[in-house]
Amino acid sequence: MLIVAERLNSTRKAVARAIAERDDAFVRKEARRQAEAGADYIDINVAAARGDEIADMQWAVRAAQEATDLPLCIDSPNPAALAAGLAAHRGPAMVNSISGEQERMEAVLPLVKEHDAAVVALTIEDAGMPSLADDRVRIARAIVERLTSEGIPPGRIYVDALVRAVSTEPMQGRELLDAMRRIRAEFPEAHLISGLSNISFGLPSRSLLNRTFLAMAVAAGMDAAILDPLDRRLMSAVCAAQTLLGEDEFCINYLTAHRAEALE
Amino acid sequence: MLIVAERLNSTRKAVARAIAERDDAFVRKEARRQAEAGADYIDINVAAARGDEIADMQWAVRAAQEATDLPLCIDSPNPAALAAGLAAHRGPAMVNSISGEQERMEAVLPLVKEHDAAVVALTIEDAGMPSLADDRVRIARAIVERLTSEGIPPGRIYVDALVRAVSTEPMQGRELLDAMRRIRAEFPEAHLISGLSNISFGLPSRSLLNRTFLAMAVAAGMDAAILDPLDRRLMSAVCAAQTLLGEDEFCINYLTAHRAEALE
Repeated sequence: MLIVAERLNSTRKAVARAIAERDDAFVRKEARRQAEAGADYIDINVAAARGDEIADMQWAVRAAQEATDLPLCIDSPNPAALAAGLAAHRGPAMVNSISGEQERMEAVLPLVKEHDAAVVALTIEDAGMPSLADDRVRIARAIVERLTSEGIPPGRIYVDALVRAVSTEPMQGRELLDAMRRIRAEFPEAHLISGLSNISFGLPSRSLLNRTFLAMAVAAGMDAAILDPLDRRLMSAVCAAQTLLGEDEFCINYLTAHRAEALE
Repeated sequence: MLIVAERLNSTRKAVARAIAERDDAFVRKEARRQAEAGADYIDINVAAARGDEIADMQWAVRAAQEATDLPLCIDSPNPAALAAGLAAHRGPAMVNSISGEQERMEAVLPLVKEHDAAVVALTIEDAGMPSLADDRVRIARAIVERLTSEGIPPGRIYVDALVRAVSTEPMQGRELLDAMRRIRAEFPEAHLISGLSNISFGLPSRSLLNRTFLAMAVAAGMDAAILDPLDRRLMSAVCAAQTLLGEDEFCINYLTAHRAEALE
């Protein structure tokens, strides 16, 4: 499972403050801690700091890459900030995100091609964000076909079929799992990624719901997640899920995590 | 989700001792604690006490029914002990178990019919215990068709597609989940039950594996489980799984469990 570490997101107050104060040490420390906890990519989102997003992104990308050899996931609603982050990044990055929305597709696709980036593909279209599995699958198909026709190999595409809260829409867990299974079957070389935590929005004991849903999603074909790798219980569920699905040869990762007393 | 509470099993030393010593208070207390923790049936297995299984079963059934109004799950490899337990039981019980083995089928089917019992149906045949999903589905089909042709309604059949350990057979988690999805689709009125805990045999931190697999199995269609309802983390996973799959209207069970500080 590929882990995109989510802590360097400016919606967290401490991160927004670090960006505003150009606190390199904070960014380096968060990047390093997440790398040590098992991240494969470090997400960088500076949009909510409400400063100069271009300059903030360039600074944050450089600060994070001083601390870790891991690639970053350049995360912004603003294509110009994505371009700035990719330009400042050493090596191939991940772009978060493209979607089925026409304007977004046309703005972000050239960046993905130019920088040989991996890309998170949200199943949103101009008509909105789907609630039914059928619509998620249809939009995913349209995006994957467009990207591959432009030369992006499916192995660089991370489809995010978008989690919605079960507190207000009780069938959204099932619809998403169904969509994941169908996208996995139709595009076996593409990846399936999810942020997961929206599933529990509005309910208490959210981490219990999030890790329980993670297990279901991995069984439905999800092979990447955007999450906090310092959440030991969530990472324990990731480790257990892979062992249970035969993706951990000789159970070595599980046994290693057990010996390191990392399982909870 | 239907919970068959597993603690009154003579493979536990304390239970074997209680049976040997005719300790009614022990049986009553265990039955009551499991009922309070959310059990729907209380499993009674006296075989491993190695006494007179017929007399032990009759005694244990009466002792448990003194403590709770819940129905019992009469559990034995020995059809004569099943018959004795059913005869001693007030109201419709569950029988654990029938299978696709010819001798077992012919011995247990008359008891299920005579006592209007629910029945756990193991996907075993005379050729052995299957490892592939295909074989699990084929055996389940043969059993369900036989039982329904004899007048047992599908809603009284609890198919147990049998868990095998991932430590020695890494693909067994996937095979079982695949079998569950297919049996659920083919027989929507039948139930799917599982003991689950064999999945983690031979590995450390077994409860983590068990509750992670429970989430996957519920998403695959499992609607009944044989487990220890006093295991708070496992029961929290049950509760979370139902909420995530839209089986908890207005999230009432989840919110109630949260308020009772029962979620872990």
